[in-house]
Amino acid sequence: MQQIYEYIDQHWQEAVEDLKRLCRQPSISAQNVGMAEMVPLLVRMMQEYGISTRVLTGPSAGYPLIYGELEGETPITLLFYNHYDVQPPEPLELWTSPPFEPTEYEGNLRARGVSDNKGDIVARLLALKAYQKVHGRPPVSVKFIIEGEEEIGSPNIAAFIDSNQDLLKADACIWECGGVNWRDEPVISLGLKGILCVQLEVRGASKDVHSSMATIVPNPAWRLVWALASLKDVEDNIRIEGFYDKIMPPSRREIDAIDAIPLDEDETKESLGLERFIRDVTGYDYKSRHILEPTCNICGIDSGYIGTGFKTVLPCMASAKLDFRLVPDQRPDDVIAKLRKHLDDHGFSDVVIAPLIEGENPARTSLDSPFVRVVSDAAREVYGLEPVIVPSMAGSGPMYSFTGTLGLPTALIGIMYPGSSPHAPNEHIRLSDFILGSKHVAAVLKRMASV
Amino acid sequence: MQQIYEYIDQHWQEAVEDLKRLCRQPSISAQNVGMAEMVPLLVRMMQEYGISTRVLTGPSAGYPLIYGELEGETPITLLFYNHYDVQPPEPLELWTSPPFEPTEYEGNLRARGVSDNKGDIVARLLALKAYQKVHGRPPVSVKFIIEGEEEIGSPNIAAFIDSNQDLLKADACIWECGGVNWRDEPVISLGLKGILCVQLEVRGASKDVHSSMATIVPNPAWRLVWALASLKDVEDNIRIEGFYDKIMPPSRREIDAIDAIPLDEDETKESLGLERFIRDVTGYDYKSRHILEPTCNICGIDSGYIGTGFKTVLPCMASAKLDFRLVPDQRPDDVIAKLRKHLDDHGFSDVVIAPLIEGENPARTSLDSPFVRVVSDAAREVYGLEPVIVPSMAGSGPMYSFTGTLGLPTALIGIMYPGSSPHAPNEHIRLSDFILGSKHVAAVLKRMASV
Repeated sequence: MQQIYEYIDQHWQEAVEDLKRLCRQPSISAQNVGMAEMVPLLVRMMQEYGISTRVLTGPSAGYPLIYGELEGETPITLLFYNHYDVQPPEPLELWTSPPFEPTEYEGNLRARGVSDNKGDIVARLLALKAYQKVHGRPPVSVKFIIEGEEEIGSPNIAAFIDSNQDLLKADACIWECGGVNWRDEPVISLGLKGILCVQLEVRGASKDVHSSMATIVPNPAWRLVWALASLKDVEDNIRIEGFYDKIMPPSRREIDAIDAIPLDEDETKESLGLERFIRDVTGYDYKSRHILEPTCNICGIDSGYIGTGFKTVLPCMASAKLDFRLVPDQRPDDVIAKLRKHLDDHGFSDVVIAPLIEGENPARTSLDSPFVRVVSDAAREVYGLEPVIVPSMAGSGPMYSFTGTLGLPTALIGIMYPGSSPHAPNEHIRLSDFILGSKHVAAVLKRMASV
Repeated sequence: MQQIYEYIDQHWQEAVEDLKRLCRQPSISAQNVGMAEMVPLLVRMMQEYGISTRVLTGPSAGYPLIYGELEGETPITLLFYNHYDVQPPEPLELWTSPPFEPTEYEGNLRARGVSDNKGDIVARLLALKAYQKVHGRPPVSVKFIIEGEEEIGSPNIAAFIDSNQDLLKADACIWECGGVNWRDEPVISLGLKGILCVQLEVRGASKDVHSSMATIVPNPAWRLVWALASLKDVEDNIRIEGFYDKIMPPSRREIDAIDAIPLDEDETKESLGLERFIRDVTGYDYKSRHILEPTCNICGIDSGYIGTGFKTVLPCMASAKLDFRLVPDQRPDDVIAKLRKHLDDHGFSDVVIAPLIEGENPARTSLDSPFVRVVSDAAREVYGLEPVIVPSMAGSGPMYSFTGTLGLPTALIGIMYPGSSPHAPNEHIRLSDFILGSKHVAAVLKRMASV
């Protein structure tokens, strides 16, 4: 491995120049800016790094996917999931340097997309180049699937993977991004929650009416409030019948892993200006609740007059946007059916569940998987610190297509640090994390060959 | 009386020309358009009609009030409450003729403010002119108080009346407007509900956060939903402790009056596109609920992301605007204190009651008052139909200053019909209603002298 690490140490600046090339090209999926230019640029670069590459389209019209492969010393195969699209850069006035003019400063590199997720793509390519230069080929085979719709909710990835299972056959998967914590310990995350987004709508009279009619005219805002209040109680228990039925209890290893995660509750409280958490959780309960529990969250409520001052109106419409974060083995379809039944059973058949974005299943890789040990041991070797194992992130993503459909143990690792500000102005990486992240991938490839 | 009625029949066209002069002058209090021009125009016209007139200012800076008086044959005094301001005319594109170009068509007169409330002012002036021309002076003395802020909630009228009780001393009051129902029966209303408008606000984290934090971060939208749901149950019972305590039961006469009001529930359902009313009320229950019951209404709710599509956010703020319509002897201050106590008692001390517009006490004139008989008998004589007595309107207004502070029995009568569209495009009156309304006032003056 020493030769590989040395190659990375000697050549990372060249890779950073390539990363700057990627970051100079906007690729904003939400605004369709630069997407058509991004694909050939990345394809060319991957080919320069020795990856056989082709452009694929999903079953629906959408931004194309880039598939890449490189044969290794064994048929054992590691699949990388990444994305070439980035978040919109707005608000522009908060950027210290223009978002698509990559800027090095004090050992950092600032640009939109540098941490999420172009930096990871190049760090992974650099590791593969090191093996090709030093040994001719990597210890295991690799595949890349790089989509262009991650920042708009990956609407087509599940169908694409469903119909390309042979092409994407592999033994394990490295997820798009990850990184170190505030103590510079490498964090290895093993899951994402599922998600279900619904809009609840209630209609009343055919138009807004004068509020003096509140004596006799049903108010959809009240109907919505009562329906919502029936879904969750003040102790934060979700009251939808059977909502918790399919939840798997955590394994002993998951409990131990959660126990070992450093506590950050004071920092969280301070950064959010909070005096307390829900149920006043603290310590292990705080961590396990965040990692293991499903949610039922109000993202927005809208009804009637919400401007300044007052208007005495009885609104004709009320709506709420909710998102549920789901944990294994909950399923969006099952939750939506239970939600419908709950509303009907509680007298709220007038509350319409409006179709929204497709849900995602939760995904979690078992701590018993040998791949977890591979990634952890590699991290310990490269970072020189004990890695932190997080059984699941609190967020969501299309991971179930990889863990479920493809059946791959999947780990989130990468080159971010907690100050990277992905999705925000002045997104950046520390170049030291870029080097370590590239070496970590190199070490994973090596150890995977000898499992 | 015959001479008086004949005078009105012979001279109403001249009064309508004067009404057009008033309507040509915009007087939009909400937009401060034409207010300064309206006052001298109306003062001059009142003087032309023989009324001693002066302009008064309220205790606060605001649009001035016009006071007028005319001595009658007895010191018995009738006070007219009117207003010279009008609603904004928008949306202009829905008007058949320009809102400030009064237009006669098919026996109607169309203009902003013609029904609310300039037509009533001129109809009342015409009745007084008739007495002056025929008998030299009216049978009783009259006073006018005409404010310029009715359409913006009469923020200064209560304080003005408080400090001008001697000036406004009278024996009874005729309210700004009223009219006939769809069957052309004269409607005499005897009260207005009080009102209390509050904004409830809940704050959470210092900024909106990613909805994956819903595991641990309190959501102010949920807090608001739970607090609101505690205020009123699905059967429309207001659950604020003691809310109903001070409500006076209806008198036998009020019950009988409500019983005699023609039913319009089918028309109401159809015009509002409703299949059912709250609690499926019908018949007497429908009428009495609308007339006698207080309300707790959500005018608007606002929290988080309410645009199209989805944003998985946990909002940092949630607010709701509520209005309570109050009935005798509820008081806004008392209800707000009970609301605060209710929220505290139910664990919602985090829900802030933000100050809004000043509340109004409910006002209702007893059916036992001799003045009610005066106004009813006068209506029967002029309209040739049995008048409909409505113990209270469902709406609100600053009537308590007249019934409470000044102690006056007060009746709402006027020149509208149900198609008049006050506050809406193509506001208009039927000129036949203008003539009848003027005669009704003349008859009231006559009968008042002989009580």
